Amino acid sequence: MRHLIILLSFAVCVTATAQNDASIKDDFKPSALNQPGQQFPQVNSQGYARFQIKAPDAQSVVVSLGLGGTRGGTPLKKGDDGVWTGTTAGPMEEGFHYYHLTIDGGVFNDPGTLNFYGSTRWESGIEIPAHDADFYALKDVPHGNVVQVLFPSKSTNTSRRAFVYTSPDYDRNASTRYPVLYLQHGWGEDETAWSNQGHANLIMDNLIAAGKIKPFIIVMTYGMTNEIGFGGLRNFKIDAFQTVLVDELIPYVDSHFRTIADQPHRAMAGLSMGGMETRMITMNRPEVFSHYGLLSGGVYAPADIKDKSKVKLIFLSCGSFENPDGVKKAADDLKAAGFNAVSFVSENTRHEFQTWRRSLYHLAQLLFR
Amino acid sequence: MRHLIILLSFAVCVTATAQNDASIKDDFKPSALNQPGQQFPQVNSQGYARFQIKAPDAQSVVVSLGLGGTRGGTPLKKGDDGVWTGTTAGPMEEGFHYYHLTIDGGVFNDPGTLNFYGSTRWESGIEIPAHDADFYALKDVPHGNVVQVLFPSKSTNTSRRAFVYTSPDYDRNASTRYPVLYLQHGWGEDETAWSNQGHANLIMDNLIAAGKIKPFIIVMTYGMTNEIGFGGLRNFKIDAFQTVLVDELIPYVDSHFRTIADQPHRAMAGLSMGGMETRMITMNRPEVFSHYGLLSGGVYAPADIKDKSKVKLIFLSCGSFENPDGVKKAADDLKAAGFNAVSFVSENTRHEFQTWRRSLYHLAQLLFR
Repeated sequence: MRHLIILLSFAVCVTATAQNDASIKDDFKPSALNQPGQQFPQVNSQGYARFQIKAPDAQSVVVSLGLGGTRGGTPLKKGDDGVWTGTTAGPMEEGFHYYHLTIDGGVFNDPGTLNFYGSTRWESGIEIPAHDADFYALKDVPHGNVVQVLFPSKSTNTSRRAFVYTSPDYDRNASTRYPVLYLQHGWGEDETAWSNQGHANLIMDNLIAAGKIKPFIIVMTYGMTNEIGFGGLRNFKIDAFQTVLVDELIPYVDSHFRTIADQPHRAMAGLSMGGMETRMITMNRPEVFSHYGLLSGGVYAPADIKDKSKVKLIFLSCGSFENPDGVKKAADDLKAAGFNAVSFVSENTRHEFQTWRRSLYHLAQLLFR
Repeated sequence: MRHLIILLSFAVCVTATAQNDASIKDDFKPSALNQPGQQFPQVNSQGYARFQIKAPDAQSVVVSLGLGGTRGGTPLKKGDDGVWTGTTAGPMEEGFHYYHLTIDGGVFNDPGTLNFYGSTRWESGIEIPAHDADFYALKDVPHGNVVQVLFPSKSTNTSRRAFVYTSPDYDRNASTRYPVLYLQHGWGEDETAWSNQGHANLIMDNLIAAGKIKPFIIVMTYGMTNEIGFGGLRNFKIDAFQTVLVDELIPYVDSHFRTIADQPHRAMAGLSMGGMETRMITMNRPEVFSHYGLLSGGVYAPADIKDKSKVKLIFLSCGSFENPDGVKKAADDLKAAGFNAVSFVSENTRHEFQTWRRSLYHLAQLLFR
């Protein structure tokens, strides 16, 4: 467990250095994640982020976002008009970042941006345009649906929510049945993360439109059940979530969607804590899933898996600023032991959603082949 | 148009008076809309709301929520621990209320609660338990789905989002076809409002489980298209939205869901601005919809409707603190002219979602009979 905890904590790798204003290009545009009509935050073509917050009587406004993706912070300065403004000291890494404001010692969200569930709260988000943003862009292609279902859960005595991605052809081919990927979020996130932050539905739409994959269903549900609580991962027990997923959600999905309801056509993957959950559940219940994916979420050793014949794919990934050598070596060891194992390293990203968007893009092309 | 603008502005009706603390019951509980694990805001059994905000160095923290549903405000007081606390001066009205914080002159959301899209921004929300909350409660009954679709829109040159409620039986009866209600949000809201604030899906689930209605589909999309902008309703033109709804969304829904794709089985209703849109579109395009619903959104005069034979139902509603006499008289006039018109007045509510939840509950029981 210890090495997982380390993997799950944020890597620190501050490479950019403070630059003077003359080197910052004046081509700032509103972030793609801003609320309708909002001009700030903005991002320029170099990846600098600029913030503006109105709070005329505040003593201090600091944006938690700074260099190195998730570390550091950007203090804002108040102008004569009562508006606080500031720019990150260097370019931000590509992709999605969570952040928040600290105003006079209290934590609040930036009223300019949409909120995303992370760190067990709805946080502000900003998008730094990536060179490869095309694969998760909203394009003029046929779109699948993201279906909110409320499924009964006896073990937790409530209705629980899941989101189910169905492909553009799903409603037109009334007799076709599909394989299913169960895809988990990370610690502090929830079942909205893979659609909102990850654009999982758009990644699938684009892959299908390009003819790169055959359609499959993706199911996303909340992985932080009662026993996990909000205290962290040290006392993590998989039982509660495993029961919800395997004994309640899967039967519900198999009876309400046109799935191919057998082990060879069922995959599980997850990011960070969701990878840890994937690893535990696939090892505990080898009769349920045949394709495994750990995205910045640990590795399997060959000895972890009792029956090699039941495993069709092991996919291991992380950002290049995480633990790429460990991930590659684990895949090599698995391959040497006869598994169909693949590693993927996302260049110049860390424990953030750009790593996981890219991971899903690659994983999807390897599933159910 | 003038009387509509008046209807759409918030009614002011402050009935509660300031009370001393001794009369406030000490049975406060976290609001049902709080973020996971958050203890504040809280509501007591009398409907008082209590807020706590951490901001040790702030000069002023005011909650916009006060008496009379939407008017007034609640200034918080700072304790020695840097936490600001305050309680509304009187009980709040039942149901859902938007609010925000003003901290040192800036507008922010309460980090304790979920956000809801209203006033063209994501705002904090609080729920005052209502005596009739059972009809929109999450219960142990079969649940339908809320399906996010992205439909192509040539007129606005993008993919647009809609949410489609399908009933619990939809996926099990592969040959059944359903009537459709197109249901619009109000000014400053979006296609998420009827599910998030309105619980439209739970209202339907409960009505169906109780055998009070036959299932139908509900489609909810964004009604503030380019031409409306964020400037208000004075320069409102219906053309852009009418094109999106009638010429783009309806054909998409009819080709992707199992609808009964004809005028007798198609309804349109909306709240506030959505009612204004419903009135305009149903009058412009009488061949499209047969059942009309205006929820705090104006009225029809008998002369507004050219061909009486095309209209199966006109439903008019509002809160008792809005314009109940106007709504009742309009329905009476329509009935006298031979229309099947029904009025509904929500007791002790105003231009807020409790009025519209109740309106949908009653409207649903009158549709497609």
